[in-house]
Amino acid sequence: MLQPPPAEPGMREEEVDTPALLLDLDAFEANLDAMAALLAPTGAKLRAHAKTHKSPVIARLQMERGAIGQCVQKVAEAEILAWGGIPDILVSNEVVGPRKLARLAALARISRVAVCADGAEQVAAYEAAAEAAGIRLPVLVEIDIGAARCGVEPGPPAVALAERIAGSRHLIFGGLQAYHGSAQHKRSPAERAAAIGGAAEATRRTVEQLRQRGLDCPIVGGAGTGTFPLEAGSGVFTEIQAGSYAFMDADYARNESPPPFRHALFVLATVMSRSIPGVAVVDAGHKAVAVDSGLPLVWERPGLRFAGASDEHGKILVEGGAAPVLGERLRLVPGHCDPTVDRYDWYVGVRRGRVECLWPVAARGAMA
Amino acid sequence: MLQPPPAEPGMREEEVDTPALLLDLDAFEANLDAMAALLAPTGAKLRAHAKTHKSPVIARLQMERGAIGQCVQKVAEAEILAWGGIPDILVSNEVVGPRKLARLAALARISRVAVCADGAEQVAAYEAAAEAAGIRLPVLVEIDIGAARCGVEPGPPAVALAERIAGSRHLIFGGLQAYHGSAQHKRSPAERAAAIGGAAEATRRTVEQLRQRGLDCPIVGGAGTGTFPLEAGSGVFTEIQAGSYAFMDADYARNESPPPFRHALFVLATVMSRSIPGVAVVDAGHKAVAVDSGLPLVWERPGLRFAGASDEHGKILVEGGAAPVLGERLRLVPGHCDPTVDRYDWYVGVRRGRVECLWPVAARGAMA
Repeated sequence: MLQPPPAEPGMREEEVDTPALLLDLDAFEANLDAMAALLAPTGAKLRAHAKTHKSPVIARLQMERGAIGQCVQKVAEAEILAWGGIPDILVSNEVVGPRKLARLAALARISRVAVCADGAEQVAAYEAAAEAAGIRLPVLVEIDIGAARCGVEPGPPAVALAERIAGSRHLIFGGLQAYHGSAQHKRSPAERAAAIGGAAEATRRTVEQLRQRGLDCPIVGGAGTGTFPLEAGSGVFTEIQAGSYAFMDADYARNESPPPFRHALFVLATVMSRSIPGVAVVDAGHKAVAVDSGLPLVWERPGLRFAGASDEHGKILVEGGAAPVLGERLRLVPGHCDPTVDRYDWYVGVRRGRVECLWPVAARGAMA
Repeated sequence: MLQPPPAEPGMREEEVDTPALLLDLDAFEANLDAMAALLAPTGAKLRAHAKTHKSPVIARLQMERGAIGQCVQKVAEAEILAWGGIPDILVSNEVVGPRKLARLAALARISRVAVCADGAEQVAAYEAAAEAAGIRLPVLVEIDIGAARCGVEPGPPAVALAERIAGSRHLIFGGLQAYHGSAQHKRSPAERAAAIGGAAEATRRTVEQLRQRGLDCPIVGGAGTGTFPLEAGSGVFTEIQAGSYAFMDADYARNESPPPFRHALFVLATVMSRSIPGVAVVDAGHKAVAVDSGLPLVWERPGLRFAGASDEHGKILVEGGAAPVLGERLRLVPGHCDPTVDRYDWYVGVRRGRVECLWPVAARGAMA
């Protein structure tokens, strides 16, 4: 069941029911503007990643500020964006299975959709689905530039797969997908620069080898919030796939030089027990905030430390500062924004203490 | 948005779209029967915890096999159960805030509802809400028997709070809530026995002190899947609040003597990339399976090890046995069942390879 919204426009932030997913609109808009300003001189375009926000509303706001389209990881996410009016969607991932492929191909009637491949078997399945739907489907070759997850090797294996796509009647070679996921969260700028330097070089070499075979890359896409200035400045990448930049999270903030964005996303929680001395228990645990990249931080309350989560409780240790009282609201900065957003049905947009808007997390749970 | 069901009754398991939350109905029913058989000789009753399953359908099946009611952690969960026809619901947790309390009190018109307190301020708020709704609300005193999260100290502080409840015009003293969460996952039976031994003793002492003040405990509730034979055998606890027993998870299975239940809950995933040698990537990552209590296990596929998750991908290392092929389905045993269930809109009930039923995870996301 869809949960009822925890607030109404016009309410004060203290009246919002908890746990709630709070979007600080001033910070969020500043982040969209900051990304546009940072990318403008590079020539690289933003194709923002909707796996972070899962919202056609946010996608439209990103596109009003210069994003040329959206990425998703799943067909079910592509559906929500396409149905919500987003015209250009890249599934930056492999899609396996005839039902999913039929759903993806059906979207090509209302939006431009593209998908990635890292094997000949997938290319054959994409060709069959595109033929059945009577469309031509752009397919990018995903190359493995360091994450050792999906992707073919850069260079000749990538070229061979691209030629197979280009030679398929109902497919169009769409370019390269080159995302170095594990580089996003390396702590020091030097480590990130080394990882992306190697990745960009392998990508550049592959683009060049493709050109020699007569294959141009309409898209060379990749990068994330942790590394995008490197990819954008490389001269190789044409599209930047950052997502978290719009919200930020505690893990990105822990980097030695964190990205130049503001915390815009919070889980609003209520202190529900002050029975144990030195402990404030809030109503937000594992089901309310993702801990896979570390525990959340308590926002602007020095001396309060989120020390542990159970399913429905967060345990905050009062190590200094003002002790929170029963019923008090605390803003938590999630350790990892993407899976936190996916736990909620609603964004509560706030500006200077007032609820301004409610937006559905329309692709919440869209994993298929 | 509610996600469309990933299957239809009658399908073969291999046809289910992924990721999907699979319930092996034979194992699940065996677990319900096993719990009924284990509790019968003890005299303790089962009040199963719905924070695990979040489904009025499963609650009814538990009650058909002897459970006397259900627990929940949140008012929004209580609503889903009450609306789904469950007649007896204990919120085994504190509830803070007038909106939540008004919603809880409203449920008292259609189901028996009770709630817990660990402070005088909460008791006053419960009294106000019950008076406003024109009901009498049973309130249990939560005592801290080792978790150091919520709860007052056993003994005199608990008695004082119980007297405050009993002296409130619109409240009824409902008994004691005594849950030792951290004891559930201690690895050895001896550690669990030591923890629950002390907890049961503190609870017994408090019950006795209440009786001396003329206060009987209609409910002495607590326990979970990891320790319930100890509480049930203590002679103190009248109600057992186990939830995971119906499903089981990888963390409980890691105990030195795991509980006597079968794995009934799985995340069904599809192999979506076999490009990197020795790696099979599945379409289930952080958004599909909770990792807060450890990574999932690959079910009945020795040699395959789930080695890491990112948002939408699970990385499985092929260390022996048959190598999975692209498109193959794998059953994953979640590390922690409760937050995994909360990521899905549908249970896909399977029996001997066929989909038998679809049940909504009706209280998915019900955190308020």
